[in-house]
Amino acid sequence: MDRYDIAIIGTGPGGLEAAITAKIRNKNILLIGNKALSLKVEKAHTIKNYLGIPDAAGDKLSDAFKKHLIDMEIEITEDKISSVYAMGEYFALQGAEVMYEAESVILATGVVLGKPYPGEEKYLGRGVSYCATCDAPLYRGKTAAVIGYSPKEEAEVLFLSEVCERVYYFPLYKEAVNLDKDNLEIRTDKPLEIKGEMTADTLVTADGELKVDGVFILRESVAPSQLVPGLETEDNHVKVNRKLETSIPGCFACGDITGTPYQYIKAAGEGNVAALSAVAYLDEKKRKQSN
Amino acid sequence: MDRYDIAIIGTGPGGLEAAITAKIRNKNILLIGNKALSLKVEKAHTIKNYLGIPDAAGDKLSDAFKKHLIDMEIEITEDKISSVYAMGEYFALQGAEVMYEAESVILATGVVLGKPYPGEEKYLGRGVSYCATCDAPLYRGKTAAVIGYSPKEEAEVLFLSEVCERVYYFPLYKEAVNLDKDNLEIRTDKPLEIKGEMTADTLVTADGELKVDGVFILRESVAPSQLVPGLETEDNHVKVNRKLETSIPGCFACGDITGTPYQYIKAAGEGNVAALSAVAYLDEKKRKQSN
Repeated sequence: MDRYDIAIIGTGPGGLEAAITAKIRNKNILLIGNKALSLKVEKAHTIKNYLGIPDAAGDKLSDAFKKHLIDMEIEITEDKISSVYAMGEYFALQGAEVMYEAESVILATGVVLGKPYPGEEKYLGRGVSYCATCDAPLYRGKTAAVIGYSPKEEAEVLFLSEVCERVYYFPLYKEAVNLDKDNLEIRTDKPLEIKGEMTADTLVTADGELKVDGVFILRESVAPSQLVPGLETEDNHVKVNRKLETSIPGCFACGDITGTPYQYIKAAGEGNVAALSAVAYLDEKKRKQSN
Repeated sequence: MDRYDIAIIGTGPGGLEAAITAKIRNKNILLIGNKALSLKVEKAHTIKNYLGIPDAAGDKLSDAFKKHLIDMEIEITEDKISSVYAMGEYFALQGAEVMYEAESVILATGVVLGKPYPGEEKYLGRGVSYCATCDAPLYRGKTAAVIGYSPKEEAEVLFLSEVCERVYYFPLYKEAVNLDKDNLEIRTDKPLEIKGEMTADTLVTADGELKVDGVFILRESVAPSQLVPGLETEDNHVKVNRKLETSIPGCFACGDITGTPYQYIKAAGEGNVAALSAVAYLDEKKRKQSN
């Protein structure tokens, strides 16, 4: 397997700028995210302060970003990273089906919507999952609740309803749900808490308690402390310095994940700095190895 | 005389983005600099990593910035500020003939280059460059001379030696050079002048004349402490935290003046953060006064 120089997780402005700058510096990069880029950019109202692109509707900005990637011959690998492990000499990134390796990592997964549910962290890996593709087989013939933060997750819900005996779906967005399966129930009550014994077995909602075998929480991004075990965080953001270095050597972060302001141009600027810091880290590492 | 909410000194990407963001937040701003914006942007070779504006020639980027200012109805006051005085409750800015007053200040004056070499300004953008990351691709397979003012520039030199056929490096510092490449020659003679016809093609040194395709001048000389008496600096840059606050309350900084990397998108991103920090400072000040 190839080991990449820099793995960049996230296709918002921070991740894209990091990819472009790292590519210019001749690094072998892996850019992981969505080919549709960021739903948040796409759906944004007009953005007035992205210097050089005045009065840009979200989709116009998104198109400008896509064109830039094409110009630079940068490919997006469509995958979802559930965990990043610092192995000492390199990083291992757990995708839905594949494990990637990279010398350095740039986290650009954006801000996590909403606080974790009570019980979510406690039962993570024991009845709570963030990835249907990865964990659906564990719930074959069983009952699962799925909490989805965007219409993009509906494909995952459909997949789960093919594997599970019964699926309860809690869509946390305004758009109409476009799913129709006999064993799938669309719920409008609000999920509140995950409870259980050794493993999660109950989803508490505003309407009462629901017996389940597992709960899938499908957010656009995973909380940074869960994404990278051991990573230092501060107010639910990754702690970084002015060079966008995190507490783990070789791991950098940029964009909304590092904190406010949540602005496109701020994210892009940080992506640039994170990429150049990663390049400097790789050069320094190489120099040490050759001594 | 009007007292402005925010005075922004400098019309590079950092200052412009700060002005746009502050204007959106309904602040009464003074933007001081050149109507031609930044000579460095205007004269830059193609910039490949300003996300959303791929492959932008310097003048194209400059035009996009100017259009953004017109769209937002932001005027540039053409003046040169020689000193900024922190008066306690406000700042006084000494212009060529006028003194301005503002509640807060954003410094975005860029890197103040030392004394230029004869020919340097003439050939800037035509064989003379200040940024290896930006312009190295133009010298693929060619010969470049690099003048470096600190050991920190060696990573840039290494990068150039990967791209160019041949690199002459003139380290203008005492520390030992830690570079070893077959196509890289470390020179001890002193660079004196840049000459050429339409573009720079000769570096004159104490030892004679050197035929080159381009000259990179990697300096790091800033004197922000002269601009703002009492301002804390670090390695010739203004010392800032992640909010772009300087050591003086109400005084913020963004762009090249805060340190490397000297990149347009980094400067713009910081301009955004500096403006929002200034807005928060003004809001907080108002709240205290009304109590």
